[in-house]
Amino acid sequence: MKLLSVSALLVATLVLPQITLGDDLIDYPDGYRLWAHVKSMTIHENHPLQNPFLGIHHVYANARALNGMKTGRFADGSMLVFDQLKSQSAEGASVEGDRVLIGVMVKDDQRFPKTNGWGYEAWKGDSRSERLVKDQGVSCHGCHTQRKSNDYVFSQWRD
Amino acid sequence: MKLLSVSALLVATLVLPQITLGDDLIDYPDGYRLWAHVKSMTIHENHPLQNPFLGIHHVYANARALNGMKTGRFADGSMLVFDQLKSQSAEGASVEGDRVLIGVMVKDDQRFPKTNGWGYEAWKGDSRSERLVKDQGVSCHGCHTQRKSNDYVFSQWRD
Repeated sequence: MKLLSVSALLVATLVLPQITLGDDLIDYPDGYRLWAHVKSMTIHENHPLQNPFLGIHHVYANARALNGMKTGRFADGSMLVFDQLKSQSAEGASVEGDRVLIGVMVKDDQRFPKTNGWGYEAWKGDSRSERLVKDQGVSCHGCHTQRKSNDYVFSQWRD
Repeated sequence: MKLLSVSALLVATLVLPQITLGDDLIDYPDGYRLWAHVKSMTIHENHPLQNPFLGIHHVYANARALNGMKTGRFADGSMLVFDQLKSQSAEGASVEGDRVLIGVMVKDDQRFPKTNGWGYEAWKGDSRSERLVKDQGVSCHGCHTQRKSNDYVFSQWRD
């Protein structure tokens, strides 16, 4: 089950930028690097989700999402970030390389009724404008549905 | 240079608990899991520092240390945590396992004059009482001396 948690925040679709949807666009998660670091995981080349999740990813939670992790219910305004970097291995160590993408999940029951209140977005590399989710998060949410019992969130807080 | 950063926070000495030194004991860094996550790295079995640093480690900084990373000078009260977990690989992914140890560096020019103002300590696994640094951090600092130009800190903030 733990290994499946990778399918995690995105079943993303690294294809075309989505059509501009006005108010439906999810904001870039400014300041997430100072949010709580929930957990990390590395996906290798022989993993079924290596495309697009190859590398190391860190999951960050804002204060509301952190509370949700303890209760299993995420209040509106909860945000999770999936921060994916290349993993560079040499001389017996693996270090972080360039950013591949960052993905977000944001909870807003009014805005995202089709996906059980969760909105999904991703940005390529360090870009704040090149968006990667093209289907309003429907495919992302399709995978997250298996975690319905935890309000559709894969990650769990560890001490 | 980047790969060397592992020698990082400890050249630790997983031998005997240190002698109780009264006021010189460094406090366990309560709440560090909510501090800023600076960076992560994985040490594999063929790395020269695999003993004791085998696994994945995350570096966390308190607010003062975070400021120090931007200026290259760390004010008294700066604390860094080196949080080392086992890395468990299966089915093409590496996930976090049990905690191996946590190490800290704390800056206090008055308390730690012999090591350029930095105190070093480590705790085994999830213990808050089983201390691992036996030489008042002298061996830790011996390695950190190569980073004198950055106030003896290996890690650098990445965006």
